[in-house]
Amino acid sequence: MTRAAVIGSGAWGTAFAKVLGEAGASVTMWGRKASVVEEIRDRRSNEISLPGVKLPETVTASGDLAEAVHGADLIAIAVPSQTLRGNLADWSGHFGRDATIVSLMKGIELGTTRRMSEVIVETAQVEPERVVVVSGPNLAPEIAAGQPTATVVACLDEDRAKRVQHALALPYFRPYTSDDVVGCELGGAVKNVIALAYGMTVAMGMGDNTRASLITRGLAETARLGAALGADPLTFAGLAGLGDLVASCSSPLARNRTFGEHLGRGESLEQAQAATRQTAEGVKSCLSIRDLARAHGVEMPIVEQVEKVCHEGADPRIAVKMLMTREIKPE
Amino acid sequence: MTRAAVIGSGAWGTAFAKVLGEAGASVTMWGRKASVVEEIRDRRSNEISLPGVKLPETVTASGDLAEAVHGADLIAIAVPSQTLRGNLADWSGHFGRDATIVSLMKGIELGTTRRMSEVIVETAQVEPERVVVVSGPNLAPEIAAGQPTATVVACLDEDRAKRVQHALALPYFRPYTSDDVVGCELGGAVKNVIALAYGMTVAMGMGDNTRASLITRGLAETARLGAALGADPLTFAGLAGLGDLVASCSSPLARNRTFGEHLGRGESLEQAQAATRQTAEGVKSCLSIRDLARAHGVEMPIVEQVEKVCHEGADPRIAVKMLMTREIKPE
Repeated sequence: MTRAAVIGSGAWGTAFAKVLGEAGASVTMWGRKASVVEEIRDRRSNEISLPGVKLPETVTASGDLAEAVHGADLIAIAVPSQTLRGNLADWSGHFGRDATIVSLMKGIELGTTRRMSEVIVETAQVEPERVVVVSGPNLAPEIAAGQPTATVVACLDEDRAKRVQHALALPYFRPYTSDDVVGCELGGAVKNVIALAYGMTVAMGMGDNTRASLITRGLAETARLGAALGADPLTFAGLAGLGDLVASCSSPLARNRTFGEHLGRGESLEQAQAATRQTAEGVKSCLSIRDLARAHGVEMPIVEQVEKVCHEGADPRIAVKMLMTREIKPE
Repeated sequence: MTRAAVIGSGAWGTAFAKVLGEAGASVTMWGRKASVVEEIRDRRSNEISLPGVKLPETVTASGDLAEAVHGADLIAIAVPSQTLRGNLADWSGHFGRDATIVSLMKGIELGTTRRMSEVIVETAQVEPERVVVVSGPNLAPEIAAGQPTATVVACLDEDRAKRVQHALALPYFRPYTSDDVVGCELGGAVKNVIALAYGMTVAMGMGDNTRASLITRGLAETARLGAALGADPLTFAGLAGLGDLVASCSSPLARNRTFGEHLGRGESLEQAQAATRQTAEGVKSCLSIRDLARAHGVEMPIVEQVEKVCHEGADPRIAVKMLMTREIKPE
């Protein structure tokens, strides 16, 4: 039986623990807040992150990280991207020497422009072959409700990817394996930025043609960045590219889209943060993705415009107009 | 100045005539119904197909096909796919010898499994280099309302594609050229079938993860068919693949999605036809696309299931379940 730990008790960490537990693993979650840890351990619920969801008997929680990861073959991490490096320094001494580290995070580190798996390899001194990225059209509340979906399990080590695939497979949750770690991580990180732009177009009353064009052009610029970084172009046409992007743009509940809607209504970054009580991941990642793109000479017009709206006070109406009236050329 | 004719006075033909007319062409539309022809000619409106839309002064109409196409450099055709061959036999004698024939149709002919451009080449005895396919996220009412979007203009002859591109370019309508006629046509035809399946999942209350997975898997099987028929795989990641598919699935107004919703609620084909007062194109094309896929040994599980629901009385709930619980494997 798989012994698994999930670090992070937000919506995605909790839904992932539920999947692991239902698929037969013995799971211990770790969270920073004692009240959430107690609720998971004593009542098998996490009402703040996933209201109404019942966790299986196979899932418990601990406030002690060393206890949570002790003996775990699989350690999944779902903490805010920009906090990963600082936290790992404290945590990784407790990780088992052959444990598989699963990254559930979708972001690019500010300053370093590192992907999350790179931060894990660097900071936790884990071999790259031990890091697995799980990414796909995976809105946590829907997975927790047992709505059917699929995901990608990416690892440089094919056997390890297969082990994680089997540890996760459920009738409603279909994992597909891949060796394209770079592509899966870029798909997940860039889609947050595209979803911000999508939310802006929604707020401006743009129709489905405009929105579908934005998704298409957004995926194209993601794939261009991926090509420059050695990803497989086909990854972006798959679940971790297109699938994740479409889910995040379509759902009125998705954080980045919602945040973009606030910006599109003319709210400032501060007003949008106050209204949503959080900062969407794409707001930070648009800076590091822009830097990454520039460093590799890749044109990413949507990311550039989102960065200008988020951090340089640009008017979203002008930004969207700029995107839709670029010079005509071959596709 | 471009002299253009548009054959067909439905929503897409009318919106396309409006684009051509606004971009500077002199356009004559042809329609079968005398009342629609008179309305376009005398009042520059087509209330049945595009309520509330005003056509520019550059657009007129004629009930005489020979008159409508006389002297036209560009002849766009937007008639129901399955009626094209029969009509062309009557019409094509009137086409100018170097006129560009633009196909706006998205279907595969029943029985022959021919794409629309192939039917044009065969029946109108036009060289393949003179046929242009226009396809993309192009819901007609939104284009008529001036909502920004983009499209693909595909032709084996690059110069001809560029001429059509410039004849269509407007600030809100961005044409991109391509030489992948096969890919553009397959993208347009198969998306009707995927949109039927999407509508079924909507009616069944499936969430955004499930729907995004369906779009992703649907595009993957379209690309597999495309690869077998010599299309460029990247076309399916572009506006005529992904873009068109996402627009047709996202819009509650799109015909095939709406038709699929009726089927997903358990209505028979006849009940759905009665409720929508039409047959969605995908209902016919799913048969010819399935035949095309089988003839080329391509697996298209979504198309197969849609065909079973439409024509063999299969239960859509079982069909969708079959799709979501296929064996796990590499993506």
